[in-house]
Amino acid sequence: MRFTSEQQEEIQQQGQATAQTRRSTVPALEEILYHPYPVLDHGFIRVVDYMGGDDAVVQAARVSYGKGTRKISEDTGLIRYLMRHWHTTPFEMCEIKMHIKLPIFIARQWIRHRTANVNEYSGRYSIMDKEFYIPQPEHLAAQSHQNRQGRGAVLDESAAAEVLALLKDDAARCHHHYELMLQDEENGHGYGLARELARMNLTLNTYTQWYWKTDLHNFLHFLHLRMDSHAQFEIQAYAQVMFDILEKWVPVTAMAFKDYRLGAYTFSAGMLKVLKAMLAGQKIEQESSNLSKREWRELMDVLEAN
Amino acid sequence: MRFTSEQQEEIQQQGQATAQTRRSTVPALEEILYHPYPVLDHGFIRVVDYMGGDDAVVQAARVSYGKGTRKISEDTGLIRYLMRHWHTTPFEMCEIKMHIKLPIFIARQWIRHRTANVNEYSGRYSIMDKEFYIPQPEHLAAQSHQNRQGRGAVLDESAAAEVLALLKDDAARCHHHYELMLQDEENGHGYGLARELARMNLTLNTYTQWYWKTDLHNFLHFLHLRMDSHAQFEIQAYAQVMFDILEKWVPVTAMAFKDYRLGAYTFSAGMLKVLKAMLAGQKIEQESSNLSKREWRELMDVLEAN
Amino acid sequence: MRFTSEQQEEIQQQGQATAQTRRSTVPALEEILYHPYPVLDHGFIRVVDYMGGDDAVVQAARVSYGKGTRKISEDTGLIRYLMRHWHTTPFEMCEIKMHIKLPIFIARQWIRHRTANVNEYSGRYSIMDKEFYIPQPEHLAAQSHQNRQGRGAVLDESAAAEVLALLKDDAARCHHHYELMLQDEENGHGYGLARELARMNLTLNTYTQWYWKTDLHNFLHFLHLRMDSHAQFEIQAYAQVMFDILEKWVPVTAMAFKDYRLGAYTFSAGMLKVLKAMLAGQKIEQESSNLSKREWRELMDVLEAN
Amino acid sequence: MRFTSEQQEEIQQQGQATAQTRRSTVPALEEILYHPYPVLDHGFIRVVDYMGGDDAVVQAARVSYGKGTRKISEDTGLIRYLMRHWHTTPFEMCEIKMHIKLPIFIARQWIRHRTANVNEYSGRYSIMDKEFYIPQPEHLAAQSHQNRQGRGAVLDESAAAEVLALLKDDAARCHHHYELMLQDEENGHGYGLARELARMNLTLNTYTQWYWKTDLHNFLHFLHLRMDSHAQFEIQAYAQVMFDILEKWVPVTAMAFKDYRLGAYTFSAGMLKVLKAMLAGQKIEQESSNLSKREWRELMDVLEAN
Repeated sequence: MRFTSEQQEEIQQQGQATAQTRRSTVPALEEILYHPYPVLDHGFIRVVDYMGGDDAVVQAARVSYGKGTRKISEDTGLIRYLMRHWHTTPFEMCEIKMHIKLPIFIARQWIRHRTANVNEYSGRYSIMDKEFYIPQPEHLAAQSHQNRQGRGAVLDESAAAEVLALLKDDAARCHHHYELMLQDEENGHGYGLARELARMNLTLNTYTQWYWKTDLHNFLHFLHLRMDSHAQFEIQAYAQVMFDILEKWVPVTAMAFKDYRLGAYTFSAGMLKVLKAMLAGQKIEQESSNLSKREWRELMDVLEAN
Repeated sequence: MRFTSEQQEEIQQQGQATAQTRRSTVPALEEILYHPYPVLDHGFIRVVDYMGGDDAVVQAARVSYGKGTRKISEDTGLIRYLMRHWHTTPFEMCEIKMHIKLPIFIARQWIRHRTANVNEYSGRYSIMDKEFYIPQPEHLAAQSHQNRQGRGAVLDESAAAEVLALLKDDAARCHHHYELMLQDEENGHGYGLARELARMNLTLNTYTQWYWKTDLHNFLHFLHLRMDSHAQFEIQAYAQVMFDILEKWVPVTAMAFKDYRLGAYTFSAGMLKVLKAMLAGQKIEQESSNLSKREWRELMDVLEAN
Repeated sequence: MRFTSEQQEEIQQQGQATAQTRRSTVPALEEILYHPYPVLDHGFIRVVDYMGGDDAVVQAARVSYGKGTRKISEDTGLIRYLMRHWHTTPFEMCEIKMHIKLPIFIARQWIRHRTANVNEYSGRYSIMDKEFYIPQPEHLAAQSHQNRQGRGAVLDESAAAEVLALLKDDAARCHHHYELMLQDEENGHGYGLARELARMNLTLNTYTQWYWKTDLHNFLHFLHLRMDSHAQFEIQAYAQVMFDILEKWVPVTAMAFKDYRLGAYTFSAGMLKVLKAMLAGQKIEQESSNLSKREWRELMDVLEAN
Repeated sequence: MRFTSEQQEEIQQQGQATAQTRRSTVPALEEILYHPYPVLDHGFIRVVDYMGGDDAVVQAARVSYGKGTRKISEDTGLIRYLMRHWHTTPFEMCEIKMHIKLPIFIARQWIRHRTANVNEYSGRYSIMDKEFYIPQPEHLAAQSHQNRQGRGAVLDESAAAEVLALLKDDAARCHHHYELMLQDEENGHGYGLARELARMNLTLNTYTQWYWKTDLHNFLHFLHLRMDSHAQFEIQAYAQVMFDILEKWVPVTAMAFKDYRLGAYTFSAGMLKVLKAMLAGQKIEQESSNLSKREWRELMDVLEAN
């Protein structure tokens, strides 16, 4: 149950109303406005407003008076130039606002991105829904032994089933007791406890929701960190949907972002030295490279990747 | 010459194009979109984009799924409540982007508001126009003797004329030499100096321009500080125009801002004590008030103002 | 068990080492450096570093070359003037860094203050301790009926006992299962689950800890919001300890903060009108005041408070 | 005249006073505390306070209770790991405060770094000194023809002399008239104009000064952008001095910054493809590389640099 029927009705209404505007618009984004993209088992992301697009980036870079009259190819070149040279302020001229539903333990990672505006559903004011994130069995992985903060092999079937049972039972029991604490005493089996106190009994996989608004520069920064293979799988799932939204919103910027951020790699001074020696035909081993084992492995990984 | 004819044409074109949008729109703001409001002798402010309005503030406060179905009176009450109790995050959900032309010494005050996005016309990249701020004679005031950073009486006519002549001559000569430094040597009377160097010869009343984008909360904070009677007259002139824009954009928020910020006054603990004694019919003088002379005068000013 | 014996040893070591410095120092704060103040049942706050004090505020305001040679009374007057007139940048010149242990549901409120630097204990990387916040019975209050996000009467003894039993049982069971999920399979009764997954089974009253660093201006802003009687009791408990620290760190600023923020009240334009009429001897009722019932009650509360 | 005799005396006094502290100290930075490093013809940078050092970065990364007991090599490895993987929050735990004197046109570039605290000498409140930046002849360069915002060849001797004469004359005349406007009318040849107005007659090479405070992460970001060969020479001069300060303050971080930022290069997805083909022994030309001419040249520059 991602939405109540009342919510579904409201979403539908939002989708139908249109108005005239003299603002810059992005038709591909208008099409998916208000539409909820499902993420994980109960979460979603939906765009509820935006300001600007690729043209606003160009306009800011030119501090010109309008959309400019130059050819598309020049605008594309300009955006790619800005991205390559880390000229970030023109990307700050676009904004996007999303409505997001996500588990609390992911919300705690997410909120560390400070340069965004947030209004979260309040557990002091309202009652938290009975919805928890329960992973798919194929996402229940063992602690990695190489990586202190990563995942290793997937649990076997029976172990996964037992873990899932624990997760479900504990979340359900805690929420049941939460409701019991909240219930009015009058009906004989409740305590009327303040919401701001009762909520502490909920588990960290309980879903919350918020409006989250950020500018394009910080949106890209979020994606860069959270689409990374070292990010927790659950936040990667949100970032992946946000990248699809990015491609609709600012296709030229999205392509430049792919080439100069997602698909790029930064070589350290030491790595550059090794690289030049290799190009000059020298045979280099880790021992003679002056790189640590970890750096050497990272370098090899990049050079051997397809 | 606020605009070149080329710019005027572009502004006119922007005003004509319209598109369909499913985003929230504010008709009163749409009407003045792209329109330049004159400020000082050569400056202007024009809104070039916006996101959200009073309804977005309400929506964020409710973290609801839509515009809500409650009555206008309830929305108004909610916005007033948020303003009165300094609940600032819902006001961060709206954005406005303006194109502003202003003298450099005012730009230096303005930029101290750090929570905004800025793209300024670059003197490294482009040639600065020959436009300087020259005050109206009635704004040429003497240094205040009470206030270390304020203005006192207006200069008399002949003194004003002499000051204006100095300002005009110096600005013009400096700009003329700036152009001379820039001019290509080939034509025999220039030096081809780098723009990033030549610009240092300009005076601080030279006009610059920028795109300036901020959220509604920080927009209000800017207005609160810069509409204040202690702010420099020239930045007050910009703030006054921005307040007019505010009233078109978010009329309910603007009214609440007037009541709870512009027209409000914060009484210190000591002032509250004095106030209560007065209401109880006691006669209080500065000497017996425990307030400093300066605080006492401020209190009297507030209580005696109309 | 606030600290392990290993931690206690480390804290003691930190307290003993001293060095010479030419930086500005605050002897009263040096005395309590590293000392953990207990908060709630398992939490604490301890100052681990600081920069500047009242003198740095004065120095910044004067942009002078040194500590200044003026009398203390002048420095005090300057700080009070800055506070009264919301000149905030000089207060940004001081920093404080604290080590804080607090329940996750409070950490979620706290982190909304974005203008701070934070490094939190990571549940992806490390195992969360078995410590939960369990309120004292006298803090277990019913939901307020007047205030949608507040507390009303304290629960009676038997109800409190039942709620506490639920809180303790659920937190303990969830943590036990968390440990079970983490345990290596090899010993026959664990699953070796990744830490980043297992943690979602913990309840929101589990304790976390972080280093939190902020400047004095934002520290005061935090206190202003979180010492307020409408803030949740549990975060007020932290704010109260932080105010004690403030008084040691910057005694002059702390006193000004008390007079011009904590003990102050902002009258709206409408309230000022009522006030002036009252001072002029008129008899005003809510009906004739043009104030809403809620605003009228707030005004009366302020005027009648001692 | 970088300092008045009064200022020199104050600086000397600051250098002599010492106190005991239990805070973490950095002896190499203590040695240069308050010492003014000259920059350009009249500017300077001097460190006036700091908080933390390399050990605070490590402490934050470990969220441990003390300085940790691990070996230096492990701390070094940790800092290098944090730098390489863009884990920025531990670097935010250190702060530095500097007193800087710089020309206004450079201050305008500098202030665009928003994540810092600033208190600037106020031209509304005080009288601006008669000091202007006049470049050395060898820094007077022509506009670059390749780079729209760069410098090309140095001006020849006679052209340089003429430009310098213009710069000196205009700055001096403007400041003289500024003083005349400010002078009290009483003595017969002044106008008593408000300082906030008169200052607009000054040229952009006039010196100003400020206290500037930032955390280590943002300090590094500033250096990364402003030590770059594309930054304006005059701000590079400040950045170079700041890098020397960095090496005294946090030597391990400084070395990691050199390897992973200053000496590093980011290869785009397209460049990586070319690189792999080259390493595989293929012969690639720009035409067959799928890179634009500009990108190809940048790649060759990196691979051919020593």
